[in-house]
Amino acid sequence: MTAEPKPQTYYSQAAIAQLLSSESPIKVERRSYQPCLCERLQSGPGGTRPLTGFELEVLRSAQEQLPLVSQNKLLEIVPGQPQSRLQQPCRLGIVLSGGPAPGGHNVIAGVFEAAKQAHPDNRLIGFLAGPKGIITNKHAEIAGEMVAHYKNSGGFHMLGTGRDKIDTPEKMEQCRQTCAELQLSGLIIVGGDDSNTNAAFLAENLHDLGTRVIGIPKTIDGDLQVPGLCQIPFGYHSACMAFATEVGNLNSDCKSDLKYWHFNRLMGRSASHIALEVAFQTHPNVILIGEEIEEKELTIHEVVRLIADIIVERAKIGKNYGTILIPEGILEFIHEINCLIIKISYIIAAYNREAAEEESFHKLPFEDQVQLIDNSDIWRDYDSRIFLGLPPRLQTGLLLPRDAHGNFQYALVNTERILLDMVATYLRKQRARGIYKGNFRTQNHYYGYDGRGTFPTKFDCDYAYNLGHTAFSLLANGATGYMAALKDLHKPITEWQPIGIPLAPLMHLEERKGRLELVIQKQKVDLESPAFQILAQERQKWALEDDYRFPGPIQFSGAGAEAKPITLMLNALGG
Amino acid sequence: MTAEPKPQTYYSQAAIAQLLSSESPIKVERRSYQPCLCERLQSGPGGTRPLTGFELEVLRSAQEQLPLVSQNKLLEIVPGQPQSRLQQPCRLGIVLSGGPAPGGHNVIAGVFEAAKQAHPDNRLIGFLAGPKGIITNKHAEIAGEMVAHYKNSGGFHMLGTGRDKIDTPEKMEQCRQTCAELQLSGLIIVGGDDSNTNAAFLAENLHDLGTRVIGIPKTIDGDLQVPGLCQIPFGYHSACMAFATEVGNLNSDCKSDLKYWHFNRLMGRSASHIALEVAFQTHPNVILIGEEIEEKELTIHEVVRLIADIIVERAKIGKNYGTILIPEGILEFIHEINCLIIKISYIIAAYNREAAEEESFHKLPFEDQVQLIDNSDIWRDYDSRIFLGLPPRLQTGLLLPRDAHGNFQYALVNTERILLDMVATYLRKQRARGIYKGNFRTQNHYYGYDGRGTFPTKFDCDYAYNLGHTAFSLLANGATGYMAALKDLHKPITEWQPIGIPLAPLMHLEERKGRLELVIQKQKVDLESPAFQILAQERQKWALEDDYRFPGPIQFSGAGAEAKPITLMLNALGG
Repeated sequence: MTAEPKPQTYYSQAAIAQLLSSESPIKVERRSYQPCLCERLQSGPGGTRPLTGFELEVLRSAQEQLPLVSQNKLLEIVPGQPQSRLQQPCRLGIVLSGGPAPGGHNVIAGVFEAAKQAHPDNRLIGFLAGPKGIITNKHAEIAGEMVAHYKNSGGFHMLGTGRDKIDTPEKMEQCRQTCAELQLSGLIIVGGDDSNTNAAFLAENLHDLGTRVIGIPKTIDGDLQVPGLCQIPFGYHSACMAFATEVGNLNSDCKSDLKYWHFNRLMGRSASHIALEVAFQTHPNVILIGEEIEEKELTIHEVVRLIADIIVERAKIGKNYGTILIPEGILEFIHEINCLIIKISYIIAAYNREAAEEESFHKLPFEDQVQLIDNSDIWRDYDSRIFLGLPPRLQTGLLLPRDAHGNFQYALVNTERILLDMVATYLRKQRARGIYKGNFRTQNHYYGYDGRGTFPTKFDCDYAYNLGHTAFSLLANGATGYMAALKDLHKPITEWQPIGIPLAPLMHLEERKGRLELVIQKQKVDLESPAFQILAQERQKWALEDDYRFPGPIQFSGAGAEAKPITLMLNALGG
Repeated sequence: MTAEPKPQTYYSQAAIAQLLSSESPIKVERRSYQPCLCERLQSGPGGTRPLTGFELEVLRSAQEQLPLVSQNKLLEIVPGQPQSRLQQPCRLGIVLSGGPAPGGHNVIAGVFEAAKQAHPDNRLIGFLAGPKGIITNKHAEIAGEMVAHYKNSGGFHMLGTGRDKIDTPEKMEQCRQTCAELQLSGLIIVGGDDSNTNAAFLAENLHDLGTRVIGIPKTIDGDLQVPGLCQIPFGYHSACMAFATEVGNLNSDCKSDLKYWHFNRLMGRSASHIALEVAFQTHPNVILIGEEIEEKELTIHEVVRLIADIIVERAKIGKNYGTILIPEGILEFIHEINCLIIKISYIIAAYNREAAEEESFHKLPFEDQVQLIDNSDIWRDYDSRIFLGLPPRLQTGLLLPRDAHGNFQYALVNTERILLDMVATYLRKQRARGIYKGNFRTQNHYYGYDGRGTFPTKFDCDYAYNLGHTAFSLLANGATGYMAALKDLHKPITEWQPIGIPLAPLMHLEERKGRLELVIQKQKVDLESPAFQILAQERQKWALEDDYRFPGPIQFSGAGAEAKPITLMLNALGG
């Protein structure tokens, strides 16, 4: 076709090497960003004093199980010498726990730099691959070059992470041994509700050893909150922005191509915090909030109609496209489905308990599984009616293997695909009745792991770094059994207020493996909050008028680089 | 738990309104960017002169079907007065065609600004919802405010887009009528290979009307290239960077969590250009290139082994995680699968031709479909052997409904999931043999529509804007039947060389709807190119050493903002 002339060969080995380097421009650039510190932390580790005005109640069982740390009072950090209960120089340990969240490396940077500032011989030990690293004493000492290398980068790959729980006396004893061997004066646990539960029990159990324990609120799911004190954990903003970039791009695509309905499932466990933030970032046509569905006691068929009605309305004005946000935990909030899940989980557990070795419920053919459920004492006729009225994909989904604790694994169910199929079925009926005349072409998406791994936003870079400094100040004042936090995140960074929240009052009793356990309580979306109330008004406009918002990719300089979560700001401004 | 004190209510209506506005900070900021022009276009529309050194051969059937435009010579644009064959003031039309690609709005901005610069009364008409807009004369005049509003934004939503082809004498006549009614001196078609095929035939058929036609090379797939002249179409870089952000984030996630293999299918039709670029951007552990699989005549089981072998090797060094890139068109390059697809397409078409109304192959139960295929004259025993050896998901996939042209719809098949299942099966056997001892936990992803809708990179902003200016210069010189292009994209923008590539030599004969048609030839990945050759060396390192690259989100200022596609640079530098 075309004969190419001899190409200009200004072959450059160096230029090619640079193109092939794993040191991407952004990775190099992000390292040079020095996160900002709030005013109270700027002059080095501070002292602590009680913070009043908040009443923290501790359950009796928390008082019983955590006698030493359940008396803790809420603390704020103020500039000045720490009450230096920390031996100098000291050794501290840190562990990253649970799913990765953007900003984790900055917690480490914050602790490291605060520790070195306090005494150049202070040392920081990183446990590898999560809590298992404490149990088995697998660690690496954190050096300045490591901190400089990973600062402001995403992921937890400096140390790795894991999900092991320190939930037996044996594991606790192993942790004690590790802390004793390493002579740790303090241990910082970066994680979500379960990891902070670990932190509380470790604080209690390591008290006599002199190893103080501080938790750091991390989770992209956004469900580790303390009203008025910890508005949001770190990692949430970055993950939401990564998902919002993707959903915003789909807004752009469907508004251009004019032919697809995009069904998007978003990570975030049971609570709908992520979906709520992504909704404000992108203005989708339909947004489901699990907590609202629960409150209104909607059935799955009502949820389907809620989606389909908007599709029908848009078709009437010639719009056969749109975007829909579905929180991954939505099924948990649909009462009838949740009942089926609980009953089926019980039946599976009962069968497996009595089954011969090598046998299990999930080795049975589907028909036998259904038969077994049907024969159970706890299964009622109306359960069968509901179950048999569900699409096969959802029936299969409800029977999926439970996790190690016997819990239903919501994330394994393609809820977006199930709802899509059910909506399609409903629309076919509406078409037959002459009510729906549109085209229903669809794409379905699941966004989760990609958002967990993003580079942190500037907000999360700063926030996580301040958390690290706060944790060090708490340790330097001898605090243990606390979660580090920054109060007033909606204000400028300089005005953030470093505090220590006692862990004991955050705990409640929850059924785990069939018995009540003392764990940190997860926070759901508050339907009375300004953010939800504003959503309830705005979404009607979003449904029909294409008021799409395109948040674009996360920026580190220029427009939007200084942004904070919209839900955070609305809850602060709209109260 | 905690009793929150009365929140600080510095309620601010204006602050809330800003948070709820669909005018995101980045959308506002991007509008203010004025794309750079190459030196040759900086002083306004230029003249044209033949560009030598390239031999462009035209097929005899192109000469026959395009007698008027097939004599076109390659042109370059040089500063100076255009040979003003365009009546002043003039009216031009523009249409966005096919899937959206980031940068489309900047082509419009380029044409608009060049036209207004040439004569303030020049007018630009935008056709709505793709080529259908020309056929039915649905249009909107483009105003300066529209251009300012959409400049540097993603998507095609200023005008919408569509996939209609102007492939019948009736449609061609309707287009003639529209162009005559609107008295268009020129028409610019922004699209991929099919749209540029449209452009060639329109140029031929509108010649006597005086409406000149210029195509613009657009496609995220990257398969519209002219060696030495058009290195890459616009939109490719932005979409690749959006996908690379996502895959880079998964690198970060799997390196942190240490437990998932992420199988990623990437949009891009048959050619593997997108997967190639994303591989250089992210350094995944496994990358499949369709063109290589075709060249090596690999069977699907060999492809599965290729993936599984790396998984086994990594498990041996304790790495039970990784990322895998799979181009969406991969099945087309696996000879045995492609043969089945062709035969089954033929059998389906034959059945449907003879079937009674209301009946079709796809209304038959699966077993009957298989029976029907099995009974066909063209189906051999070895076809059955291959077919029956495939996993059910792939068997079902191969029988999926064909598109309107009878073509297999590769994008509908969850190839990543099929390969994942086959790899899992193979690993089970390797485990039984004691060869594989790892954990195989997986996640699968499909990235496509989200990348199409991204904000364009600075490279695509500038490139598309220069293409718009180039198109205007070509029209101003009376050129028709050309594709606008910028030569030497790897050089600094100022040195880019605006050219007009005759469309006729780009055409070849291709089977469409069962007969040979003259269409623009798509370019596959050249296995002799420096980029592929370098990939073949580098990927061995990527397989085992975690040499992950994290390209991060697209930036518009600071680090990486000025980057160009790595494949483009490697092909230019490494030649």
